[in-house]
Amino acid sequence: MTEPQGGADPSVFTTEAVRDGEDWLITGEKWFGSNARYAAFFIVMAVTDKSVSVHKGTTMFIVPANAPGVNIVRNVGIADDPEATHAYLRFDKVRVSSSDLLGEPGEAFVVAQVRLGGGRVHHAMRVIGQAQRALDALCERALSRTTQGGLLAEKQMVQEKIADSWIELEQFRLLVMRTAWRIDKYQDYLRVRKDIAAVKAAMPKVLHDIAARALHVHGSIGVSEEMPFAGYILRSFQMGLADGPTEVHKVTVAKQLLRDYQPSDSLFPGYHRPTAAALAREKYADALATVEQSGEQR
Amino acid sequence: MTEPQGGADPSVFTTEAVRDGEDWLITGEKWFGSNARYAAFFIVMAVTDKSVSVHKGTTMFIVPANAPGVNIVRNVGIADDPEATHAYLRFDKVRVSSSDLLGEPGEAFVVAQVRLGGGRVHHAMRVIGQAQRALDALCERALSRTTQGGLLAEKQMVQEKIADSWIELEQFRLLVMRTAWRIDKYQDYLRVRKDIAAVKAAMPKVLHDIAARALHVHGSIGVSEEMPFAGYILRSFQMGLADGPTEVHKVTVAKQLLRDYQPSDSLFPGYHRPTAAALAREKYADALATVEQSGEQR
Amino acid sequence: MTEPQGGADPSVFTTEAVRDGEDWLITGEKWFGSNARYAAFFIVMAVTDKSVSVHKGTTMFIVPANAPGVNIVRNVGIADDPEATHAYLRFDKVRVSSSDLLGEPGEAFVVAQVRLGGGRVHHAMRVIGQAQRALDALCERALSRTTQGGLLAEKQMVQEKIADSWIELEQFRLLVMRTAWRIDKYQDYLRVRKDIAAVKAAMPKVLHDIAARALHVHGSIGVSEEMPFAGYILRSFQMGLADGPTEVHKVTVAKQLLRDYQPSDSLFPGYHRPTAAALAREKYADALATVEQSGEQR
Amino acid sequence: MTEPQGGADPSVFTTEAVRDGEDWLITGEKWFGSNARYAAFFIVMAVTDKSVSVHKGTTMFIVPANAPGVNIVRNVGIADDPEATHAYLRFDKVRVSSSDLLGEPGEAFVVAQVRLGGGRVHHAMRVIGQAQRALDALCERALSRTTQGGLLAEKQMVQEKIADSWIELEQFRLLVMRTAWRIDKYQDYLRVRKDIAAVKAAMPKVLHDIAARALHVHGSIGVSEEMPFAGYILRSFQMGLADGPTEVHKVTVAKQLLRDYQPSDSLFPGYHRPTAAALAREKYADALATVEQSGEQR
Repeated sequence: MTEPQGGADPSVFTTEAVRDGEDWLITGEKWFGSNARYAAFFIVMAVTDKSVSVHKGTTMFIVPANAPGVNIVRNVGIADDPEATHAYLRFDKVRVSSSDLLGEPGEAFVVAQVRLGGGRVHHAMRVIGQAQRALDALCERALSRTTQGGLLAEKQMVQEKIADSWIELEQFRLLVMRTAWRIDKYQDYLRVRKDIAAVKAAMPKVLHDIAARALHVHGSIGVSEEMPFAGYILRSFQMGLADGPTEVHKVTVAKQLLRDYQPSDSLFPGYHRPTAAALAREKYADALATVEQSGEQR
Repeated sequence: MTEPQGGADPSVFTTEAVRDGEDWLITGEKWFGSNARYAAFFIVMAVTDKSVSVHKGTTMFIVPANAPGVNIVRNVGIADDPEATHAYLRFDKVRVSSSDLLGEPGEAFVVAQVRLGGGRVHHAMRVIGQAQRALDALCERALSRTTQGGLLAEKQMVQEKIADSWIELEQFRLLVMRTAWRIDKYQDYLRVRKDIAAVKAAMPKVLHDIAARALHVHGSIGVSEEMPFAGYILRSFQMGLADGPTEVHKVTVAKQLLRDYQPSDSLFPGYHRPTAAALAREKYADALATVEQSGEQR
Repeated sequence: MTEPQGGADPSVFTTEAVRDGEDWLITGEKWFGSNARYAAFFIVMAVTDKSVSVHKGTTMFIVPANAPGVNIVRNVGIADDPEATHAYLRFDKVRVSSSDLLGEPGEAFVVAQVRLGGGRVHHAMRVIGQAQRALDALCERALSRTTQGGLLAEKQMVQEKIADSWIELEQFRLLVMRTAWRIDKYQDYLRVRKDIAAVKAAMPKVLHDIAARALHVHGSIGVSEEMPFAGYILRSFQMGLADGPTEVHKVTVAKQLLRDYQPSDSLFPGYHRPTAAALAREKYADALATVEQSGEQR
Repeated sequence: MTEPQGGADPSVFTTEAVRDGEDWLITGEKWFGSNARYAAFFIVMAVTDKSVSVHKGTTMFIVPANAPGVNIVRNVGIADDPEATHAYLRFDKVRVSSSDLLGEPGEAFVVAQVRLGGGRVHHAMRVIGQAQRALDALCERALSRTTQGGLLAEKQMVQEKIADSWIELEQFRLLVMRTAWRIDKYQDYLRVRKDIAAVKAAMPKVLHDIAARALHVHGSIGVSEEMPFAGYILRSFQMGLADGPTEVHKVTVAKQLLRDYQPSDSLFPGYHRPTAAALAREKYADALATVEQSGEQR
């Protein structure tokens, strides 16, 4: 889906598919095709109608990995995960049959959104698993190592790391579970858009911070390839980018939430204390008059 | 309960009650008696047996506010909440009848813990309410004000404040609800000690950060007495101190969690990748041998 | 300068001064006039020419506090600082003589900027003083109080608060000093705009965080009116709003810094490792050829 | 210096050197010997006198890498830096001549401290360089990429990342420069211990946060091996561990700073407002009496 010149905003995509008889010819570049070198086929989003918005004018194609014109420019690795390369791909007039579409022409976004909604929650589930393993390692380490005459587990600075990690992980776990429950309940991704965006925006920090604490408490071996923590940390950054950067999802949360509110049309809103007090005095004017009268009589 | 020289650690308390015939005589100072000046009676924790630990040697007394020897040294106010004063109290041989005990002699801690467990969750509930109101105000304000040619609600820096606030509040809300559900389910505060301590440790930051964002987005009026935000912020600091400072509760979370873990007795733990790989090779030695053999034969 | 409907963006100001013979008549509302109730005169920014931008069409007037038509709608207090009220003012055709201008007509912004540049650094100096006093109190308290069998100064969580506070304060102090030195050296506020904006953006957090730690380590008295910490914290929020909100100053820092950079016109920039390696191989092609040749000969 | 069972606390070191005629025999394990596989010799700290504290009873030996009994158990890599392996070493009765000591017997700590004081500042200088390069890349990227109809440089969330990075880097740069200036001026590491510890404690976060922002704004390529950011981030964690973990240095800052303060011996300290007011009234009793008298006369 993504291209070298942009990923989060589909309107910058330029890979194009044009009709050639019954077939399509795809030309353009694609970026970060995960595990591309092991793949038998690629799913490629290409512009098929420039006269409409990208949300209506792109189509999903199934392209055999060995089709003429498909080239891997290079395999892009990620530190700590060199095997799972992400390919920089070039498509040069790659011929695809009309029958090899995923969905209908112009429907690439519909197809993508189906995967993305659930996909973001799946990312969150994996994040919970990785963060839990990091926390497990942090706790075991704290009980196994001594320094300055005591167990790491007895040092306040380590205790704080453990406590913060558990508190953050449990809160995130509950948010993910509620979101999954709402997905099951409503069967409507649009209705849980705010929840999914919140999960997506929150997940990188949860994994990052817990993994960073576990790494640190392990000392030098923690930063080495012999431990999984550096990998978790880099994956936390991936989690802030894959399926849309955190910024996009925070904007979504804000916009969705703001739908539930109305602007105030007066200079001072209802929760402004002098305004609230004046409103209350007006509302209870009769009662207040009675109280004052009885006070005067007394 | 607390005294001017210390609050979080009961072993520094010095207010003492000594037997005088059928009665007790209480002498000492108490600190931060909330709303003391409106009270008809005080509940006073006093040392009644110095020969045992403070957890066994203190007793709860019910003391009429107008008993001879009870003095309010001064009323200590909190900014933005000047009415709800917290009294600095002095008890000078205040006579209390044996019938005016809350619980039995030596049982002050049992009595206190019953209130504290639930009390901490009640604090959390109020925190949720205040944080929700701050978030409501933040959203209404963002929709009501324009700057630099657009609504505040359209500025990314404001959108981030709204999104972060909702994400933090929802996660905290779920943690509090799960904790309350566990309290109801187990009917045993000891069993949910980690949960309650986590709620107590998390709450100041949730309220503080959301209220701080709401204050800021309201501009100068936000910091004034005409809005509730400064009050929420100061209350967030109180929430980090009342019923034990955050440090104590984080240590509790860590200690409770560490009960579920065992130290590793080898230099490299099981999640150490080379160690895990060696264990796996050992475990699947037969299978690996078969694979290698068939590889050689091919 | 500011008005109830906006403060950070002068283009929303509506208070207007119109010619009436030799005089001007000012009409409109002003907000948060600090210490207005003690003032002999006000300095009022008013729109005098709507046909040009607000930066050219506003004028500064000196208005006697007792001039007919000047009214204080109400005095707006700030928690912990009830005396220093900030007035909500109304001007109803207030007559001002042509001689009572600060600067020339249309020059209000020139006048304001002279004060604002220096004013922001003065805020920073006061912030350093307040943060230093908070840190002093934090240290004295840590050495004076015992809990759980030891001085607060011996607890890691307190030590971290002290260390973080000193590190943050010293870094900020140096930034302010370099900025002041550059102001003296260049005698040109435009040239140090990035520095001043950086100081202004950094100051609220420095004061807030150090004061918050000092408050917390003092326990319940820390949050009370008997200690200065709540006041410091509220002032830290004011520091994030007065003379422009933090957002505005962060945007200024970014924009000023970006002037020193050029966009890359290729898909992969020069610091992209494969690109940098290719460039290096090209640059040192001759040397590499020699090396390879000698390698083959060996 | 470090050993597999501990690094920050030298009292847990067990590698031992015993006399054998004119020579020494070294036995034990060492951990994380940087670039060991390229080294011609190792500098090994070994216990030579168990009867005194580790600060008096350890000695530095120069050991040829190919001496009999020296073994590299395995080379431990760091993600993104696989070449610069850190060796896990075993010494089995390695014979070292008496002439191959660095310093005198028992002086290992003197030798180590000479390097560590300056070494920590050198780390800081490299951190500044890496953070500056990350910030440069962040700025160039922000000017080179468009999304949602505008340059990244025009988005507030990106502007905030740029501004925060510059503010943090400049403050840290000034702290390092002042520390280096004090080292040159005093020629006494003990006198600048607090400054060096502060630099050491602050550096991981500065590098981490700036590199993390640069990585993120680069999108998927940012997390890949084609960009230097993942490497900077992992190095930031190393900077929090090498030459002592951050915790140790924060404790040092706090302890050094607390030397400048005295405990208060009264229940309420001098900065307590009621106490300060009472002291002021006492000090100026005569002046106040005169004022009151003149007030009565008026």
